[in-house]
Amino acid sequence: MNETDKRFMALALSLGRRGQGTCWPNPAVGCVIVRDDRIIGRGWTQPGGRPHAETEALAQAGQGARGATAYVTLEPCAHHGKTPPCAEALIAAGVSRVVAAVEDSDPRVAGQGFAMLREAGIDVVTGVLAQQAERDLEGFFLKTEQGRPFVTLKMASSFDGRIATSTGHSQWITGPQARRVVHAMRARHDAVMVGAGTARADDPSLTVRDLGVEHQPVRVVVSRHMDIPLMGQLARSASKIPVWLCHAHHPDAERAQAWEGLGAKLIPCALKDHHIDAVDLLQQLGQAGLTSVFCEGGAALAASLLAEDLVDELIGFTAGLTIGAEGLAAVGTLGLETLEAAPRFELIETQAVGGDVLHRWRRASE
Amino acid sequence: MNETDKRFMALALSLGRRGQGTCWPNPAVGCVIVRDDRIIGRGWTQPGGRPHAETEALAQAGQGARGATAYVTLEPCAHHGKTPPCAEALIAAGVSRVVAAVEDSDPRVAGQGFAMLREAGIDVVTGVLAQQAERDLEGFFLKTEQGRPFVTLKMASSFDGRIATSTGHSQWITGPQARRVVHAMRARHDAVMVGAGTARADDPSLTVRDLGVEHQPVRVVVSRHMDIPLMGQLARSASKIPVWLCHAHHPDAERAQAWEGLGAKLIPCALKDHHIDAVDLLQQLGQAGLTSVFCEGGAALAASLLAEDLVDELIGFTAGLTIGAEGLAAVGTLGLETLEAAPRFELIETQAVGGDVLHRWRRASE
Repeated sequence: MNETDKRFMALALSLGRRGQGTCWPNPAVGCVIVRDDRIIGRGWTQPGGRPHAETEALAQAGQGARGATAYVTLEPCAHHGKTPPCAEALIAAGVSRVVAAVEDSDPRVAGQGFAMLREAGIDVVTGVLAQQAERDLEGFFLKTEQGRPFVTLKMASSFDGRIATSTGHSQWITGPQARRVVHAMRARHDAVMVGAGTARADDPSLTVRDLGVEHQPVRVVVSRHMDIPLMGQLARSASKIPVWLCHAHHPDAERAQAWEGLGAKLIPCALKDHHIDAVDLLQQLGQAGLTSVFCEGGAALAASLLAEDLVDELIGFTAGLTIGAEGLAAVGTLGLETLEAAPRFELIETQAVGGDVLHRWRRASE
Repeated sequence: MNETDKRFMALALSLGRRGQGTCWPNPAVGCVIVRDDRIIGRGWTQPGGRPHAETEALAQAGQGARGATAYVTLEPCAHHGKTPPCAEALIAAGVSRVVAAVEDSDPRVAGQGFAMLREAGIDVVTGVLAQQAERDLEGFFLKTEQGRPFVTLKMASSFDGRIATSTGHSQWITGPQARRVVHAMRARHDAVMVGAGTARADDPSLTVRDLGVEHQPVRVVVSRHMDIPLMGQLARSASKIPVWLCHAHHPDAERAQAWEGLGAKLIPCALKDHHIDAVDLLQQLGQAGLTSVFCEGGAALAASLLAEDLVDELIGFTAGLTIGAEGLAAVGTLGLETLEAAPRFELIETQAVGGDVLHRWRRASE
């Protein structure tokens, strides 16, 4: 591994990130084709997951790819899916060297892409900036290996951890800059998710606004009884921007029909202690293709995800006001008795965003 | 005002800060005596408030003070208190120029110190780094003008704003680095204050430890009924390090006698809605000489200070764990209905301290 390889891989990684939130169910891969130290092709997984990054970059490189080096953030696919395998395309284009960040854990690939390239006489280097790639592709790997998407839980609360007054007043606790950052975070996830209580109380649209972003994340609402207002913002926009309703089995037939009529996708989930089972919920969302979900509460959904250790990243926005103990708590009951049992996270960063504090945490390693 | 004046005043301010927490009821003033661009005397208000900064610095300067410039962070006193006025001492020493940061608002001084110096033919410059000096001496000014000390409210809580589990388990939410920073914060205040619930639940000593600090802040406990364990850490150390018990009028005679026997100072305060009235509490503490108080909770005392708009600085330590809604809230009930009514603070800084997030806020300007 040399510095030049790292430099081009860093570029491939940054290209790959452009596909985040838009290319599910496929991984957000980046690719750079380099010949004589000149970049002759750049690509990333396109919206909906096709064409793949390699296809895009090879098309740009054209005949120049012969004898060139291809930098890919993930092992090129080796199986015939909806498109021919990228490993084959790289061989056909005549590249002489492939530098990859990480191996694909999808059993249909899992080393076979690299093997195919090596058999064709291509020099293959792996593990370049592997850690960064693993982080970027974490949701894809989670879906492949555990069947569930990466979960980011975001909570915007007062200094004393409240998300609304006792009368339900919650707009706005944080300032406009923090809300803008939240929109950018939404855009990088495949879906935005809230519980039924939040959908009813805030009537949110959950869209990405004011950022020049066209592609919108899926809006997931977790509502056991599917009791979300049929005249709300989500209902009114469901025909244009996907709304997925995660509900208990055997829903009220009339409500189900109404939501399907509005264009929503209905996803029946298992129950646990009279609530939607968070484990099954995420399995269903993984099966539906999502690699990452941005959960914005409320308290009950946040608690059910935390209790099952399903929160991969925790994001807090803390505002400089106090609401008091009668306000609505950010996280519902967890049933803990000792601090040792509390879900723990490691700090990644903290910074001021406008007049609020942003703090990001990751699940603590064992 | 020139750059040289600012440079020496910055030094005087940093000297003045050395007295913070130890020199109450007097202000933590710093003084530098400069002749021919050479520092010939440095001083700050000594523990207990005497000698004053000017006396210290003049003693160092000796005969060299004749014709020198004295930098003082606060207007030199003009009244005969327990020591002769500093303005007189400066005149007697023969300094030819006095540079001051701010005027003293104490009616016994309030411009008279400057007037006395000018009458003696000394060149007086004021307002150099005035803003910094005002901030450093804020507690002294509050005591002089409003009769109460500066109040810093510190809360160490989980990500979701809880200070203990439902079973009262609270050690430790934050890590050792954060706790060390808290000890340094205690040392810079005249007193550390907690409510009775915290004193009972945590049995804290509230001392400054592991920092090589000798002088300890006063420990203030707010307990209407004076019902703090007589065998706890506070009781056992009351004869060595001051414990002040703020209680309701007409206390239980036996308890009062026991605490006085242990060496505690008893401060009767007015009630409001069956609790110690926060306004009277702080007036009593101001009258007793305190210029700054570091309140470490609990939830009820924090709420009573916030509700009366008596919190000047708010400090949060947020840890990466979630405790859930059944845990103990950081701030008690405030009786708010809308967000507009919530006490608001402006962010000063946020930074990582060990694995926790420190965020500091100031009362929002109108």
